Amino acid sequence: MIDQLIAKIQKTKAPIVVGLDPMMKFIPEQIKTAAFAEYGETLKGAAKAIWEYNKGIVDAVCDLIPAVKPQVAMYEQFGVEGMIAFQRTVEYCRQKGLVVIGDVKRGDIGSTSEAYAVAHLGRVTVGSKSYAPFDEDFATVNPYLGSDGIKPFLEVCKENDKGIFVLVKTSNPSSGEFQDRVVDGRPLYEIVGEKVAEWGESCMGSSYSNVGAVVGATYPEMGKALRRVMPKAYILVPGYGAQGGKGKDLVHFFNEDGLGAIINSSRGIIAAYQQEKYAKFGAAGYADAARQAVIDMREDIAQAL
Amino acid sequence: MIDQLIAKIQKTKAPIVVGLDPMMKFIPEQIKTAAFAEYGETLKGAAKAIWEYNKGIVDAVCDLIPAVKPQVAMYEQFGVEGMIAFQRTVEYCRQKGLVVIGDVKRGDIGSTSEAYAVAHLGRVTVGSKSYAPFDEDFATVNPYLGSDGIKPFLEVCKENDKGIFVLVKTSNPSSGEFQDRVVDGRPLYEIVGEKVAEWGESCMGSSYSNVGAVVGATYPEMGKALRRVMPKAYILVPGYGAQGGKGKDLVHFFNEDGLGAIINSSRGIIAAYQQEKYAKFGAAGYADAARQAVIDMREDIAQAL
Repeated sequence: MIDQLIAKIQKTKAPIVVGLDPMMKFIPEQIKTAAFAEYGETLKGAAKAIWEYNKGIVDAVCDLIPAVKPQVAMYEQFGVEGMIAFQRTVEYCRQKGLVVIGDVKRGDIGSTSEAYAVAHLGRVTVGSKSYAPFDEDFATVNPYLGSDGIKPFLEVCKENDKGIFVLVKTSNPSSGEFQDRVVDGRPLYEIVGEKVAEWGESCMGSSYSNVGAVVGATYPEMGKALRRVMPKAYILVPGYGAQGGKGKDLVHFFNEDGLGAIINSSRGIIAAYQQEKYAKFGAAGYADAARQAVIDMREDIAQAL
Repeated sequence: MIDQLIAKIQKTKAPIVVGLDPMMKFIPEQIKTAAFAEYGETLKGAAKAIWEYNKGIVDAVCDLIPAVKPQVAMYEQFGVEGMIAFQRTVEYCRQKGLVVIGDVKRGDIGSTSEAYAVAHLGRVTVGSKSYAPFDEDFATVNPYLGSDGIKPFLEVCKENDKGIFVLVKTSNPSSGEFQDRVVDGRPLYEIVGEKVAEWGESCMGSSYSNVGAVVGATYPEMGKALRRVMPKAYILVPGYGAQGGKGKDLVHFFNEDGLGAIINSSRGIIAAYQQEKYAKFGAAGYADAARQAVIDMREDIAQAL
């Protein structure tokens, strides 16, 4: 799957993933009003609004980008109806030719981790039949439980040509509380990064591994160190834009081949119309605003590299 | 919510939580056959089998125990239909007077962590209405992202009188890869334990905090150390039974007041009928076997304490 992602990045010349994190405050009033008129102010109504909002954005940007990253929490908070919207969004994005990174941050052990892997990347058996429940292409995974939590994902990835991104150094201010603690003279995130490199060896694509890493744009120096620790891991970089990461911060996340990193922006794209810079598009033009924000982001990154 | 849990533990004299982890291989053939006859070998058929299986166990053991712990991965792997079975299980258990610990191991940052907290412990707003999507009483949470990931859960817990159990030292063999690494002369899990104690101060019940911790029965010496580090945290202890933890290993997880820990058993209870010890019950008597296994577990723990 990493080879497919790289091919799409090269085709679009955009190492960009758009985070589909449809918070209700981002969704234009006209979409919410129509959804509530049809289903009432219900979980189903909210899910309908999310779906319509996502569809507008995906239609507007799908030719410009290689991938999307739906954040499952934003769907899960609307219960079963939200999960239906999540599934529908994943399916639609794949139909549009996009690689889908499920930002699920799951992580458990043994048969439980296997169940998560099956839910998001694999096929579940029911009697003599099998089904692909949510069917993303990649999933984000939490490493705190160690190899017992990761290995079941690797098995499912190998069987189904899928991939994972393991949390290594997250973009948030308090990520250092545990991730930066010094162990044998080195920060914990580097030790996690070494394990990512090790796990990735068994799950290689043609030049990069199907086991990637999450490293926040807000910590460019750590990105530089981690780039060396795990040279074959694709780095998924959150924190650009709204969280403060700039184009120039990104350069160290890439390898000399110009590959090795994909930069996420969520609200900076999907809620661009709420920024002064894109206010001219208005709420009715939210999808066009998202398209323009993608074009501007691509330019910002290209200049930095 | 911790006060309610403690009251139920005292009433039942059983510091026991039954893990509702309905793997298909645990579900008796007669239940699967009936479910598939009704819905086919579909995700809906699997979800129906899970629900009937759970209902049988809950009906058989609900007067003996204070709490259940459904493992969401085992439902999520059956997609949206699985999540419907999860929701129905949570609702039924609460109707039966059980405290429900959602074993979801979620963890993210900021508004995303808030969305997970709302999904599992809180209420989500849709226009002028609000809904409780999955509505467990407690949720398990992963600490790797630091305070930014935990604090949104604390806010939702305070608003809704709910609680969390933070992963500190997990029961699996490879948990030491990161959790045991030595930082400033102490293992990382102790540093996480200290943060659990700190987070818990703002979210107290009458004698224990609504912020508890997960510490595996398979590491009793570490349990002893962590008991001292976080004296007001209830410890949820997985790993008893199938993973190798024995009654005598559990004593250090409790405080001198006889409280402070609740021991989980999943397959040891729900699939007891598959053990030689309970084979006489047969598949038709799987629920009675589960009841006997709860009684035996209660006795094993009582003797150890």
